Amino acid sequence: VKRPKIVTFLSDFGWDGGYVGACEGVIASINPSARIAHISHDIGVGDVAGGALILARVCKLYPPAAHLAVVDPGVGTARQPIVITTERTDVLIGPDNGLLLAAAESLGGMSGAWLIDPRQMRAKGGLAQAAISSTFHGRDIFAPAAALISQGLEPEICGRALEPSSLVRLEPPHWRVHTDGANADVIEIDRFGNVGLALPFDEFLPRPEILAVEIDGEGEGSPEWTARVVNTYGELRPGELGLLRDSWGQVALALNGASAAELLSVRRGMSVRVARRGDRA
Amino acid sequence: VKRPKIVTFLSDFGWDGGYVGACEGVIASINPSARIAHISHDIGVGDVAGGALILARVCKLYPPAAHLAVVDPGVGTARQPIVITTERTDVLIGPDNGLLLAAAESLGGMSGAWLIDPRQMRAKGGLAQAAISSTFHGRDIFAPAAALISQGLEPEICGRALEPSSLVRLEPPHWRVHTDGANADVIEIDRFGNVGLALPFDEFLPRPEILAVEIDGEGEGSPEWTARVVNTYGELRPGELGLLRDSWGQVALALNGASAAELLSVRRGMSVRVARRGDRA
Amino acid sequence: VKRPKIVTFLSDFGWDGGYVGACEGVIASINPSARIAHISHDIGVGDVAGGALILARVCKLYPPAAHLAVVDPGVGTARQPIVITTERTDVLIGPDNGLLLAAAESLGGMSGAWLIDPRQMRAKGGLAQAAISSTFHGRDIFAPAAALISQGLEPEICGRALEPSSLVRLEPPHWRVHTDGANADVIEIDRFGNVGLALPFDEFLPRPEILAVEIDGEGEGSPEWTARVVNTYGELRPGELGLLRDSWGQVALALNGASAAELLSVRRGMSVRVARRGDRA
Repeated sequence: VKRPKIVTFLSDFGWDGGYVGACEGVIASINPSARIAHISHDIGVGDVAGGALILARVCKLYPPAAHLAVVDPGVGTARQPIVITTERTDVLIGPDNGLLLAAAESLGGMSGAWLIDPRQMRAKGGLAQAAISSTFHGRDIFAPAAALISQGLEPEICGRALEPSSLVRLEPPHWRVHTDGANADVIEIDRFGNVGLALPFDEFLPRPEILAVEIDGEGEGSPEWTARVVNTYGELRPGELGLLRDSWGQVALALNGASAAELLSVRRGMSVRVARRGDRA
Repeated sequence: VKRPKIVTFLSDFGWDGGYVGACEGVIASINPSARIAHISHDIGVGDVAGGALILARVCKLYPPAAHLAVVDPGVGTARQPIVITTERTDVLIGPDNGLLLAAAESLGGMSGAWLIDPRQMRAKGGLAQAAISSTFHGRDIFAPAAALISQGLEPEICGRALEPSSLVRLEPPHWRVHTDGANADVIEIDRFGNVGLALPFDEFLPRPEILAVEIDGEGEGSPEWTARVVNTYGELRPGELGLLRDSWGQVALALNGASAAELLSVRRGMSVRVARRGDRA
Repeated sequence: VKRPKIVTFLSDFGWDGGYVGACEGVIASINPSARIAHISHDIGVGDVAGGALILARVCKLYPPAAHLAVVDPGVGTARQPIVITTERTDVLIGPDNGLLLAAAESLGGMSGAWLIDPRQMRAKGGLAQAAISSTFHGRDIFAPAAALISQGLEPEICGRALEPSSLVRLEPPHWRVHTDGANADVIEIDRFGNVGLALPFDEFLPRPEILAVEIDGEGEGSPEWTARVVNTYGELRPGELGLLRDSWGQVALALNGASAAELLSVRRGMSVRVARRGDRA
């Protein structure tokens, strides 16, 4: 299988500590012709589910690539460093904490998985042995693996094969459509304040066009909002809450030029109920 | 006309939601050899004028390139997706909301403009048809256009020609020099807290060197500041306000190692009056 | 000496004002095949020591490169623009304010230093003369120098040789190990809230494994914390303070999934005392 030269890179490192540059330097020193495309380094600190979502959405827009992803609160513990290959001939490199699996699915599903044994990988990859820190596997394990893969080496060099079903999986976000509406977890709040729900728009098909929105778990006296179904932000009046199919095909709540997340006081992981006006689930 | 392989990219997407990576992935999948240079993705949310200023200043420092710019609060409404060519053989791609025009002027002026018809563009560019979202034209329209342009395809493939004079223009920021000073809008506040004014330094030529600075619209009792004309930050004493020619040739107010914007409590769009000490306009 | 094509770039510019793109545009216009790797542009505003630390840690992970670094509160004053070559055949370009010296040491030490004379550099580099601003030498002096170096031109073209010992040096951060513990400056607080100390772990070798941590200069009544020596974050219970060898070989204080810097209320430059529990230095 021919591997491409693009290495995408997603992490929760931020740019301020030099961690991103450290990984990029390691990759460049192993494969000077690797092209590195930064997907995001502003994933919330330790937010594995948030990173998994962004990675799954974005990775499939690239041509087949080596996808390096490091959101790794368990670094240095028993959690394993892994490499996954996909039906689309991508390779995913990162920790076995669920970060990579949604991406693998969005790339056609896993075709194989390997445990990274750093000593073996460096030996078979032609690299001198080096110390492995307990706190920065991005630089010491994952970046070298991505660099070797981007050179065309087979994932088998990294270590022994793993049973794909043995990999750590995240609890999928919850959503349920019922006769008069739906409940769904908030899976994303973006820079624009849009509130992304774990609810496929095509499963929901909101009718009628005026809906009641309630934030769950706030008790009896919790405020209830009214949302209008629209196609885009610009159709909304100032302050009017909209419900739309977002660009990933999910239901999202939005304002025009302001933050719906702030208006509704919601955070990732909260649950939202959407119902026909007057009908309560 | 030979088109270059660099695609510059400016937006208000931020890096956290994966929007930048989504566009970069689309470009890479169409033109794997395109080189993407990120100008900024931290333009204020929906701040078309702010994005237009940065783009106009920076684009001309690159060799002729495809400049992709997306600050697009009207995405999915009647506002049009456009491509503009310039006398310097650059191509600008983005929404018809005024974002691109100052850049076109800084690149020698427009030599042509086209409406992007996504179906036609994909057909003539050899791409399979694909769904177009209502909320993310960066990924679905503008990035594919930039990728095709970066491959050397002519802008004509995107759609029908537009009359350049028909494009949406932003109200230019206000400035006026009078005999004893000047009034000007604040057009930029940078990370250092420098306050950039819409006032060309060479038109202002501040004499004498001690000036009164007043923030407009604050009424009679508004504080008045004294600024000294200097060449650079390091000439200023701690806490002393300076007025200088900034690196774009405009008048700016600055402190040494601190934020002039904070001291003066100014924001973009406010108006500032600069006058000879004692002489009030 | 053959010079590589990678230009690394570190600054305190942030991404919002277009300063990064301006420098990248200048480099691309002089050497279109230069590959630019952004180490960080989120160095604290004017924080020369912070930038020097990150640069020194990261630059040596790259293959030999042109390292452009601009944290330059003295821009336009008497401080000099310089180029430094290293034993490892890297070239460092930036202001003579101490920013580059730790990096040069981490790259094997200086092999030469030159003052940049912008007029001479542009003439010998085949560039048309251009105005030099007083406030943005990143764009006007350092980026052109990095671009010419990345083309393979010798640093000698930039200007006259300097005596390496004459360059401005930063005061190194303070650390001292004594019989019952150590004192050390806080040199880094990263996005995860880890508190990095100027204390090589191998010089400290903490025994026993429970330590008292005290923040200096807080007086008699200052709180004292207990830290446990661990290998990685995941070994810590919620709220438990850990002391570990960080990935750069230094002593760091950390929490598991939370900010140790916030818990301890420390900032860069403060001093920390670590002692055996019960034993006070």
